[in-house]
Amino acid sequence: MELEEAIAKRHSYRGPMDTQPVPRDHLITIVEAGIRAPSGKNAQTTEFVIIDDPAMVQQINAMHPANKAMNQAPAMIACVIDKQPQAVYEGYNFQIEDCAAAVENMLLTITGLGYASVWIDGWLRIDNHAAKLAQLLRLPEHKKIQIILPVGIPLEQWPPKERKPFASRACFNTYTLNGEQH
Amino acid sequence: MELEEAIAKRHSYRGPMDTQPVPRDHLITIVEAGIRAPSGKNAQTTEFVIIDDPAMVQQINAMHPANKAMNQAPAMIACVIDKQPQAVYEGYNFQIEDCAAAVENMLLTITGLGYASVWIDGWLRIDNHAAKLAQLLRLPEHKKIQIILPVGIPLEQWPPKERKPFASRACFNTYTLNGEQH
Repeated sequence: MELEEAIAKRHSYRGPMDTQPVPRDHLITIVEAGIRAPSGKNAQTTEFVIIDDPAMVQQINAMHPANKAMNQAPAMIACVIDKQPQAVYEGYNFQIEDCAAAVENMLLTITGLGYASVWIDGWLRIDNHAAKLAQLLRLPEHKKIQIILPVGIPLEQWPPKERKPFASRACFNTYTLNGEQH
Repeated sequence: MELEEAIAKRHSYRGPMDTQPVPRDHLITIVEAGIRAPSGKNAQTTEFVIIDDPAMVQQINAMHPANKAMNQAPAMIACVIDKQPQAVYEGYNFQIEDCAAAVENMLLTITGLGYASVWIDGWLRIDNHAAKLAQLLRLPEHKKIQIILPVGIPLEQWPPKERKPFASRACFNTYTLNGEQH
């Protein structure tokens, strides 16, 4: 798929999914795209646990009944980062940014391959979901799941979210948005 | 350009750049890709200031003599977020993630159009660089520049950074990286 089309078509899909397995070569292609994303000081901080074991997938499906994509997806990709990241530049670390860039590359690749997904992040932070998943995936104590992506073939059209127009998000040379300027 | 090729070719470019102006329609296409990126609760938190005024560009060029791309680029895109973001989900905000996803979409589109760039983030946080730029771009007090991207035609081949192999970054179903497992 053309880059421009992938960017235009990628959207958060929360609808029903075909439960047939996703071939491993597709899952590997998706994660390879995540690995290719940039990271601060090339620290490559994000790790990926690909979940396609049916018994494990079903346990995770059962945790999120409200979101059909998570509830029915035949595979997931968990993005793992350090609980206490090391600084890589002047006392700063960039693992949140690194992980988000990897996720965007994966979402575009998921779209390009004809699958659907949705960026699951906030849900992990509530009701101990991330810790429960960490136990299931046997993560070391010092690691945590930051983002998880369900992967599957979408069974419905799902309306993409509207975007504010260009002129409400962008301007040239000096800040002129929202009627504000310093 | 094909998505797969864009992901493979995108790399951090710190070399010399052609100083000829970047056409505005290209800059708009790049920022439109950023706008299309996902954001937590669709809050669309990232704003974009496109800098192509020669006098302003030259002031910014002069701030970063060590990085030829920033020192010579004829255009830049500054990504602007709130200093004190509003929570959008259970007390959390996702503007760092939102901004990083937008940047990755823009870097891929920059690559697709034949330009080069490099994700400039840590540099903004030291020596008051972000504040100096905020003043130049006349940002409101409550906004800050989180990331800036130089945009221009690369004049040299620049070696992409190596990546650890797939098996060092990814595993299936349970965590088995670095010889660690809980």
